[in-house]
Amino acid sequence: MKEIKVGLIGFGTVGSGLAEVLLTQQKRLEKRSGLSIRLTKVADIAISELPPRFADVTLTRDAKDLFSDPDIDIIVELIGGIEPAKTFMLQAIESGKHVVTANKALISQEGWDIFSAAAKKGVEVGFEASVGGGIPVIKALKEGLVANKILSIMGIMNGTANYILTRMTDEGAAFVEVLKDAQEKGYAEADPTYDIEGIDTAHKLAILISMSYGMRISLEDISIEGISRLEPIDIQFAREFGYKIKLLAISRNHDDHIEARVHPTMVPENHLLASINGAYNAIHFTGDMVENVLLYGQGAGMMPTGSAVAADIVDIARNIQSGSINRVPDLSYLPDQIIDRQITPMEELFCPYYFRITAMDKPGVLSTVSGILSKYGISIESVIQKGRKESGPVPIVIRTHRAQESAVEKALAEIDALEVVASETVKIRILEDQE
Amino acid sequence: MKEIKVGLIGFGTVGSGLAEVLLTQQKRLEKRSGLSIRLTKVADIAISELPPRFADVTLTRDAKDLFSDPDIDIIVELIGGIEPAKTFMLQAIESGKHVVTANKALISQEGWDIFSAAAKKGVEVGFEASVGGGIPVIKALKEGLVANKILSIMGIMNGTANYILTRMTDEGAAFVEVLKDAQEKGYAEADPTYDIEGIDTAHKLAILISMSYGMRISLEDISIEGISRLEPIDIQFAREFGYKIKLLAISRNHDDHIEARVHPTMVPENHLLASINGAYNAIHFTGDMVENVLLYGQGAGMMPTGSAVAADIVDIARNIQSGSINRVPDLSYLPDQIIDRQITPMEELFCPYYFRITAMDKPGVLSTVSGILSKYGISIESVIQKGRKESGPVPIVIRTHRAQESAVEKALAEIDALEVVASETVKIRILEDQE
Repeated sequence: MKEIKVGLIGFGTVGSGLAEVLLTQQKRLEKRSGLSIRLTKVADIAISELPPRFADVTLTRDAKDLFSDPDIDIIVELIGGIEPAKTFMLQAIESGKHVVTANKALISQEGWDIFSAAAKKGVEVGFEASVGGGIPVIKALKEGLVANKILSIMGIMNGTANYILTRMTDEGAAFVEVLKDAQEKGYAEADPTYDIEGIDTAHKLAILISMSYGMRISLEDISIEGISRLEPIDIQFAREFGYKIKLLAISRNHDDHIEARVHPTMVPENHLLASINGAYNAIHFTGDMVENVLLYGQGAGMMPTGSAVAADIVDIARNIQSGSINRVPDLSYLPDQIIDRQITPMEELFCPYYFRITAMDKPGVLSTVSGILSKYGISIESVIQKGRKESGPVPIVIRTHRAQESAVEKALAEIDALEVVASETVKIRILEDQE
Repeated sequence: MKEIKVGLIGFGTVGSGLAEVLLTQQKRLEKRSGLSIRLTKVADIAISELPPRFADVTLTRDAKDLFSDPDIDIIVELIGGIEPAKTFMLQAIESGKHVVTANKALISQEGWDIFSAAAKKGVEVGFEASVGGGIPVIKALKEGLVANKILSIMGIMNGTANYILTRMTDEGAAFVEVLKDAQEKGYAEADPTYDIEGIDTAHKLAILISMSYGMRISLEDISIEGISRLEPIDIQFAREFGYKIKLLAISRNHDDHIEARVHPTMVPENHLLASINGAYNAIHFTGDMVENVLLYGQGAGMMPTGSAVAADIVDIARNIQSGSINRVPDLSYLPDQIIDRQITPMEELFCPYYFRITAMDKPGVLSTVSGILSKYGISIESVIQKGRKESGPVPIVIRTHRAQESAVEKALAEIDALEVVASETVKIRILEDQE
């Protein structure tokens, strides 16, 4: 049986998960592929030895030992971050190795250099695990939905953020409390910025946009807003309107321009994305032929991510075996078919909005507020006024029809400048019902 | 650019959908695959001409014209049913053509003959569209989840049945009423037996079982119960217990034996499968590495199904182009690795149960009933007694802990023989919470 030898850079959580997957599934992979796929070398600077069950795997501190090993066919990068991950990937490619990574920051920001280098050397780049953890979303998009123009992408793509939102929703708890508990339990990192501020989600959205529409995208073009300023009261009002709040990545394909944004979104309760709870991820595509497709699963974790990395390895191994390297283009479209497209600035986009205005409970406030909204062409769908107190401010909650972001910004600036308005108005975008 | 020529047998709903997909997506497929994939010939006995936009496609009444055409690379069978579909598939294979089908009855019942013939001739068999319509479930299972032992399969795989159940749930309407309306609206066929009695779902489950576990399965080994006897009152009681009723395909992998069954199932409301509404399908896999994965989309329809058939065509076209035919085994495992396994008889399986006993409202009935259940080792989780009337029978609704089917059958036979019991007890299986 032909052997395919794998080198691994980074024996952390995901790296050790991959090693475990390859060991546990070795026989199964033989029965499915007719290939013996073996991890032979690991490069890691933080450990001094591998667990005993990896006795036949060589440990080195120097990734160069992998590049220079003529027996290694595929090198897997699982250290994360931009450098030295990028340099390692490029060196591996330069050495003629196929490469696999789970590194969404790297692929979304430096992918072009990596894909170009790989194309020049005629090697493959696998990155299934960079989006949606164990969910086979990259393969589904490149192959399963190949005969579709992708019209939209919507996703819950960060498990930490969704875990926090789910607990805030279920328990009515405040963001900081849930975050603290999540950190103590290991569900959130010590520095959770990437997860809670939507940056990780934007990395993943950028990758899906490139592949869905066959275009280059720069991370700066994606409008990003996180969940750290959400308050339980907004989750409560969302429920009264029939919505759940989710951190969504949203992109729509308008042919001549593309929407690309990440923000807390009120999702209609009967939409499947509203039912995605805890640390799970879900990615929803609309294709012009297939209509709606949703893929759901563990968006992170050592074994689920290991499963996705292993799938890439098997895919490449099969191509090595059958002499069909680059059978499917890395980014779904052939390199010379990838074009530039305009990303619509956030200010130009339309959607329905939720506003929570905090105002003194005086007669005429609603009339003033609705007058300002009307002046900017923003029409009100419904209003909730609650918590009437003897003194002190009360929330005025408004759900609007579709309005343009720029008009909303101007109207809210004017509303927040009113003397009766006690604090900055909270604005949350609403997913349209037909989506 | 290399041309790949496709012949199509059957220009009905799905066939014309495929023709439309290939025409609409031709440029896109070129940009993604570097191949010109063209439908060149259609065989159909029911039409006299093709729509004008297929002017360069030849229409014939005789499928043999496709087999004997040396230019055709791939033949697609979309007539459905066992014969003449099977003969056409075998003749196409014998002529050295790759074949693609959406025919779940054929693949689940006669697949072995087709896969054997294809292996002998060294051609491929594509059947993505046979399960889950447009959802790329076959590819996900064969490739995306390749590094997993599949532990369980659960699915809502018949859109008609799920549409009827959703409307019964939302409207409290009776099965016959909803079916009649669904037939008038074209959502259900004139003869809906396959859809509502679970047979179509069983066909799809058989295909997924073969591929998930690498085994042969006969349709007779699958225990099948449909939805035609469900009553609105049971849907109502399910809701009170926190469940929705879905027609589920369920299989579990116990290594030495396999569960395989299709029946109405009470699904906990917080399970994602409980949120799959209308004509949508969803397939849920649990893998030992990836944990839970769910794939959702349109389980039928001309364009979604056409999308899946087209994906198979592109896959085969890429293999033709790169000389990598049979790069991935048809059934996920290599033919010589497919083994026989025992299917557990339904009577031996355990699950929690819902019973609705219809009894005269006399003192001591519940005591008698619970005594019988206890005698057979069936323990009660909760009871609802409602609708107390002056005279006439009332429902006694019981939810049990896990019990064995054979014990349940004996207990219910004894209960139904009681003089106070007015009609046959309704029994619905409950999906366990941890699943």
